[in-house]
Amino acid sequence: MIVRDARTLGQRVEQWQAEGQTIGLVPTMGALHEGHLSLVQEARTRCDRVIVSIFVNPTQFNNPADLASYPRTEEADIALLQGVDTVFIPTAEAMYPAGFSTLVQVSGLSEGLEGAHRPGHFNGMATVVTKLFGLSRADMAFFGEKDWQQLQIVRRLVQDLNLPLEIVPCPTLREADGLALSSRNRRLSPRARQIAPRLHAIMQDVGASIRHGEAIDTALQNGLRQLEETGFGPVDYLACCNARTLQPVSDEEHRDKGSAKDLRLLAAAALDSVRLIDNIVI
Amino acid sequence: MIVRDARTLGQRVEQWQAEGQTIGLVPTMGALHEGHLSLVQEARTRCDRVIVSIFVNPTQFNNPADLASYPRTEEADIALLQGVDTVFIPTAEAMYPAGFSTLVQVSGLSEGLEGAHRPGHFNGMATVVTKLFGLSRADMAFFGEKDWQQLQIVRRLVQDLNLPLEIVPCPTLREADGLALSSRNRRLSPRARQIAPRLHAIMQDVGASIRHGEAIDTALQNGLRQLEETGFGPVDYLACCNARTLQPVSDEEHRDKGSAKDLRLLAAAALDSVRLIDNIVI
Repeated sequence: MIVRDARTLGQRVEQWQAEGQTIGLVPTMGALHEGHLSLVQEARTRCDRVIVSIFVNPTQFNNPADLASYPRTEEADIALLQGVDTVFIPTAEAMYPAGFSTLVQVSGLSEGLEGAHRPGHFNGMATVVTKLFGLSRADMAFFGEKDWQQLQIVRRLVQDLNLPLEIVPCPTLREADGLALSSRNRRLSPRARQIAPRLHAIMQDVGASIRHGEAIDTALQNGLRQLEETGFGPVDYLACCNARTLQPVSDEEHRDKGSAKDLRLLAAAALDSVRLIDNIVI
Repeated sequence: MIVRDARTLGQRVEQWQAEGQTIGLVPTMGALHEGHLSLVQEARTRCDRVIVSIFVNPTQFNNPADLASYPRTEEADIALLQGVDTVFIPTAEAMYPAGFSTLVQVSGLSEGLEGAHRPGHFNGMATVVTKLFGLSRADMAFFGEKDWQQLQIVRRLVQDLNLPLEIVPCPTLREADGLALSSRNRRLSPRARQIAPRLHAIMQDVGASIRHGEAIDTALQNGLRQLEETGFGPVDYLACCNARTLQPVSDEEHRDKGSAKDLRLLAAAALDSVRLIDNIVI
């Protein structure tokens, strides 16, 4: 069932709650691919009822051109969601009516990596997911690890604001050649699509080097050079961070810890002006 | 029952929710008086279960001296709350553990009046009430009209973030001489206590003048002069505002509207370094 207004959604979820049914939310910006569908599948396994929201949230786009060109494929999306209890597709006017004034901000986690290159992005994201949690009254919400920084921010805000729901992380899905599934991939030219999987391959090399004892800075510099030689540019970042705090990890800290299990390698790089992000465990 | 940790509170409210019982929250900073008890009474009338929280929230005090001198009367408070289902008294460390990073900010409404004189106050308040709403899973939360600006901000954030609860405003309670009940009143010297009700009396005069057609600016200037002559100082503001937007209303707008029903007169003034606030309908 497609629901476009908050009141109808509220009636549905109140009914479900009264019946003691658990509610899972999969927040999306549409342009659905197998990665999204794996979140939906996980939600269906774990919750009695599943809501998939489709909302290209204008407040998390710092770049109007990016917002304008973000793929919108509503009919195809709805077709892919056959069997989902509710597909919630609100308008921007309903989400942000005149007088809207509230911002949810997660400091620290929001500032580096994507935050440094997309000012305001995470404030917009944090605010809209808080709204979607309230609207859906979800017991669980499902987020892909593909957007690793987003996932950490959402976990942080749910914990900090004592929101009564559980955040369930779901692994990144990849094409056979390693390219992480993303709605933006469909904007890649055939040539760029051939190069794109090198992002993941080079990241894997960098991760292997660090695991095998190479200095982090050296490994990152080599990775950066390889990305640029392969045709990526600009490379916004290639960073080795603590997986939870997202603070860059130095060789000294890495050696002191004696373990790589909390390290995450994160990257953002453009290819023919399509901005790709990826992250892997080290 | 007194609950000091979030986990125990969570178990209680989950149980209540599973039983279909409605939950009312009365957030307080303790130092309870009849005004708070009227909120509790209203909550008991309207909800199956009532939670009163007592938390002197450090993040909403811009002035450390004010935080230090804020009255704390926990034993007496608990005695006054006999019969309430749950009194929730968390520690600051539990509410703001290491790594806490999230802020809820309501722009516009938070900036004038109290916001101009207490930087950060409303961000701290908005964040902590969002937390308390999540912790309590309240269906309704009860706020006094005494803190009119706070009430408008809370309403705004609940609407903006689609939080699934209703905000119930409750009228200001006053002493027989007109002084609005406030936890800060107990810090007034006997002499200041005698002068204090003049705040409300002068505000009533200003309101009557405006209702009877006097120019708003003139009425406010007369009121300000009277407050200062009576011994108040500094008078942080005496302002005639739209009751919902809290924007100052000019005579032109007032005449254009042809009605005073949306006007609110708000004031903050110190008396022997105790800061009093009040507001009335015009």
